[in-house]
Order: sequence, then C-alpha cells, then structure tokens
Amino acid sequence: MGTYDRLSLNTATTKALTLPEALDTAARAGLSHVGLWRDRVAEVGLEEAARLVRQSGLQVTSLCRGGFLTAADPAGQRAALDDNRTAIVEAATLGTSELIMVVGGLPEGDKDLVSARQRVADRIGELAGFAAEHGVRLVLEPLHPMYAADRAVISTLGQALDLAAPHPVEAVGVVVDTFHVWWDPQLAEQIARAGREGRIASYQVCDFNLPIAADPLLSRGYMGDGVVDFETIGRWVTEAGYTGPVEVEIFNADIWAAPADEVVATVKDRWASLVLPSLQRAGALA
Amino acid sequence: MGTYDRLSLNTATTKALTLPEALDTAARAGLSHVGLWRDRVAEVGLEEAARLVRQSGLQVTSLCRGGFLTAADPAGQRAALDDNRTAIVEAATLGTSELIMVVGGLPEGDKDLVSARQRVADRIGELAGFAAEHGVRLVLEPLHPMYAADRAVISTLGQALDLAAPHPVEAVGVVVDTFHVWWDPQLAEQIARAGREGRIASYQVCDFNLPIAADPLLSRGYMGDGVVDFETIGRWVTEAGYTGPVEVEIFNADIWAAPADEVVATVKDRWASLVLPSLQRAGALA
Repeated sequence: MGTYDRLSLNTATTKALTLPEALDTAARAGLSHVGLWRDRVAEVGLEEAARLVRQSGLQVTSLCRGGFLTAADPAGQRAALDDNRTAIVEAATLGTSELIMVVGGLPEGDKDLVSARQRVADRIGELAGFAAEHGVRLVLEPLHPMYAADRAVISTLGQALDLAAPHPVEAVGVVVDTFHVWWDPQLAEQIARAGREGRIASYQVCDFNLPIAADPLLSRGYMGDGVVDFETIGRWVTEAGYTGPVEVEIFNADIWAAPADEVVATVKDRWASLVLPSLQRAGALA
Repeated sequence: MGTYDRLSLNTATTKALTLPEALDTAARAGLSHVGLWRDRVAEVGLEEAARLVRQSGLQVTSLCRGGFLTAADPAGQRAALDDNRTAIVEAATLGTSELIMVVGGLPEGDKDLVSARQRVADRIGELAGFAAEHGVRLVLEPLHPMYAADRAVISTLGQALDLAAPHPVEAVGVVVDTFHVWWDPQLAEQIARAGREGRIASYQVCDFNLPIAADPLLSRGYMGDGVVDFETIGRWVTEAGYTGPVEVEIFNADIWAAPADEVVATVKDRWASLVLPSLQRAGALA
C-alpha cells in the first residue's frame, strides 16, 4: 500500500481554491481521495461538480456538511429537514456515502441544552430512512465542548454513539475528529465501542493549537503543531478496525493564506511522519 | 433562610482587592461566606490571614488552589507534593475543609494525556491520607476541555468521580463549576452520582460567555450573561442533596476593572434572580 493511499485532502484545508482547483491540487499531489464542502460544490453546480469529480479520478470520502437540526420552531425544523435531504442527494450524486453532520447549537436566546439535544435525536430519526434509501450515512460529528452552545450540541463521541444507536449502521455513523475529541477521558473506550458497533464512518485529523486562536474555530493546525497525541489516537482507531481513508481538515487563517501546493506538501509530510505510523503500528499487532 | 445565606464570594471575582479589602467588601455586602485564593493569603501571611478571617466573622468555604500534579520527573513530583501539603495546612488554618485542586496540564512538549492522568491518580493517592489527617478534603475540579492540555487534565465530572472513588469521602471530593461542566451530555447523571457517592464538596457558579474571550481563561461572566442553564444545573445539584454554600468565582477583565462594591451588587442581583430560585425550586419538590 502506498504512503498516501489513505490520505484524503478535505477542501476546507485549501479554502481559497475553487472545486476544480482543489481537485487539480489533490491529483497533482498524487492523492486519490478528497473530502468536499457543499459551498464549493454549489459554486459550480451539483451535476458539474459530479462530472469534475469523475473526470479527476479522485474518490470523494465525505461531503461536509448537513446538520443544524436544533431549531425549536416548526418552520425552522422543516427548513432543516429540507436542506438535509438536499445534502443527502448531493452526497449520493458526488459518489460518497458519508454526509458529515454538524448538528447545530442552541437557538438564539435559548439555554436549554437538554431539549436541543432531544430535538437533534428527533430530526435524525426523521432523516435516517431517507439517507439509507439514497445509500448515504448521516455521520454525526461530536464537536469540541467549546462549541456546544453555538455550533454543535453533540460534544462527545459517546453521545454521538448514543444518538446513532437506534438506527441501522448503514444510516447513521460517527466521525472521530482529533481536534474535537483528543481531550476526552473516555476516548479509548468510546473509539473501541464505535468499532464494535460498526459506526466509524470517518477519521479526520488535524491538531489543536495553543494558545487558542482569537477565532476559536481557526485554532486548528497541521498535525504536530499542537497538543494532540496522534500516535495514541491513531492506534485506538486502527485497533477499533477502521481501515478507511483519513481526512486532513484544517481551519487556520495562516494555512488558508499560504500557497496550496505548499500546504499540501506539509500535509503529506506530517501525514507520513505522524499519522501513517500510528495506523501501521496498530495494524502490525493485529 | 436569608436570600444570601448560601452565597459565597470567591476572592478571584474581586481580584484587585487585598485580603483585608476582600473580607471587608464581603462583610459590608451582608455576606457570610468567602472563598479564598492562596496568593492573597500569602501576601499577608497565613497566621495574619487566619486572624483577619476570624475577626471578619466570615466563613471560608474553600481555599483555591492545590494541584499541578502532572510532573513526570521525580523532582517536579516532590515539589508538587510539598506544595500541596503546605496548601492542606493552609486550608485547615483558615478554617475550611475544602482545598480546590486544579490538577495541571501536560508537561512541556509531552502529549501523553493518558499517562498524565495516571500521574494525577498516583499523586492524589499520596496526598489523600495527609489531607484527611488535617480535616481537609482534596476537591478535584474538572476544567473545561479547552484547558485539558495546559491547565487541568481532569475534563469531566465523571472522570473526577472516578479519580475520587478509591478514597474516603472525607479525603477526596469534587466541585461542580458551571463554567467548566455546563456542556457535558452526562452532567445530569454525574451530578446525581456525585450526590449518591457523597462527593459534592462545592458548587461554583459563573457564566460561560460567548464569543470566547481572547484569553480563554477570562471568558467567564456574571450569571445570566452567557450560555449556562443555571435553572437546570442548580436543580440537579439540589436534587443530588447539596445544601452547602455556593461560590461565585468569575475571571473577567472587565469585572476585575470595575469597583468591587458594584461587582458584588451585581453578583447579589444575579444570585437572587438566577441561582437561588433553582436551589429552592428543587428543594420544594423534596
């Protein structure tokens, strides 16, 4: 297996590029996988995006993102369901089975986290069947607890697995994103559980930089620049049986401002030195 | 019971004040409890601090802080044990049984969170007997996961309870600080567990402000200014059987710059409107 066979470049890492540019950058770097964001797909239109992807020969490992399911009002809930059904169709059209779900924060002025989480469970129940019919899995993403109020009320892998549990594994999965879950004292046991329960749909890597950036959303870094223990987490994910692609998804203002080819070269370096060994070492034990 | 009988003013909220000034401010505001920080105690000396506290008639609800137990080297570990023994003696001398423990982050350049957490468990084991002999409880404080690498490797209430479990309840307890734990999907069950297991040593309140402050340590706010659901968390803490003092501990640059009497007046207002009702409502159900 080649060094970069499992490396997938998420287009959020090269945010300045259009979809054709991002696909070209990944292909020229010798990669075989990309993760796509819906905004770049929308710019060229879905059918054209699907054509560009086919032409590139790249495999789409996930579409980001569905979600935002916490509305408390019926109109907001209907709008969310409509948008997610659209996203499910987009994922299928782009040739990926994985739709990453960032489930949304508290509605404006609302502090009732317990009820917001219940609404997420309810909306997932309403979407799971439609997703499965289209061969798409709703991939629940736990976000770092610093985003629990304003971005995603799913805060731990264990919680994501609890939400997934009532649904078939083909319909609802979870993503392990190192930036969001590295701190979790239950991480080892919940990754093992995710493997046992057949729920690991994606492994995403980037670092958690300190000090936290002025815009906390942009506090991600190249693997190795922050505090994440990739060796340990990669081993846990591999021991849990995950053998799929690994997306590198970095939101960082400096990285976004740098030339894309340099960014991809650094991503490949860090992948080869910090991520791939953790996946192989565990594999060797098996 | 009077409106402010359970309100304890933590001196970190009025950070600019010396110990005598802080005691005077609390007493003039009609409060009967204060939480103290060691730096303000050290400024006047321990014996004088104890005399000032006795003179004030105020009850000390906790001393902040021991901890910083994650050193990997023997010299660092010895220094940490020495400092914590000193803090235990200080707490006893000041008339409080509760020593708040902020357990520390990863050593410089170290990313092995699993081992750092094990060292915390080991050090607590070495300190618990000494604490109990002095009538002092080591109060483990889970900190928000955004501080897991650089401030405290205890990130959830459940983890704190697991670390406390091997030790007598008189020796090791936990604190529920709304700023740190509001986001936790397991919060209801872990607060209930903390009550059942007799571990709730302190309830601390302040809000989690958004956007997160440039210095994330200072992103605390007056109750009501952020995203914390005090009504729900206060009810859970009360249903868990906690009837002790409630500390208001706010790190916030604007609040530190404001006149202390105004700060205390606002704390009392927010206490009466947002915190006390949550404690009474639950009590009324019992």
